Amino acid sequence: MCIFCEIIAGNIPSTKVYEDDMILAFKDINPVAPVHIIVVPKEHIESAADINESNSKYVAHIFEKLPEIAKSQGIESYRIINNCGEDAGQTVKHLHFHLVGGVKMGEKII
Amino acid sequence: MCIFCEIIAGNIPSTKVYEDDMILAFKDINPVAPVHIIVVPKEHIESAADINESNSKYVAHIFEKLPEIAKSQGIESYRIINNCGEDAGQTVKHLHFHLVGGVKMGEKII
Repeated sequence: MCIFCEIIAGNIPSTKVYEDDMILAFKDINPVAPVHIIVVPKEHIESAADINESNSKYVAHIFEKLPEIAKSQGIESYRIINNCGEDAGQTVKHLHFHLVGGVKMGEKII
Repeated sequence: MCIFCEIIAGNIPSTKVYEDDMILAFKDINPVAPVHIIVVPKEHIESAADINESNSKYVAHIFEKLPEIAKSQGIESYRIINNCGEDAGQTVKHLHFHLVGGVKMGEKII
């Protein structure tokens, strides 16, 4: 079981900020900004390269809930990042979106 | 009409890399990496903060098509970025995803 599946299953502790039957959002343990949340589908999807018509409902649901999750953390402006594959810095092979905010970010994106 | 709506309408030229009835992907005119594609819904949605159950189908569709768009540009590893709001560096107020690749990126995301 991957580390995010372990977190979803409750076998590894996390600081949850949002949860429903499809997705889980929790605080990144190595935050790069005052707000840094990881949002994952509860279904194990390895990366964004594996999204298709059968599982894109998870992505839709994550983006429907991100505004509410951001507001719960006191931010209205944020960057959403997905790293797909090792060359993009993906370290955990379970699809996840970084929600980062609470700091003014420039136009530089990589 | 915003600049991306103008591009969608064909009033401003762009180098298209993918198009269907819901979305358009075109090359960023100021690329930050060898591959830098902008992907937009054809419906004008101001930012990720405006995604809800009525329009999340565009996000689902974008993520369904990103693997194919990336492959068409010769990459399988990439970073997907959305800037939501001015503090996150959003310059054009039309929801858009940056697809960036062709270079090895580290774990640093902002």
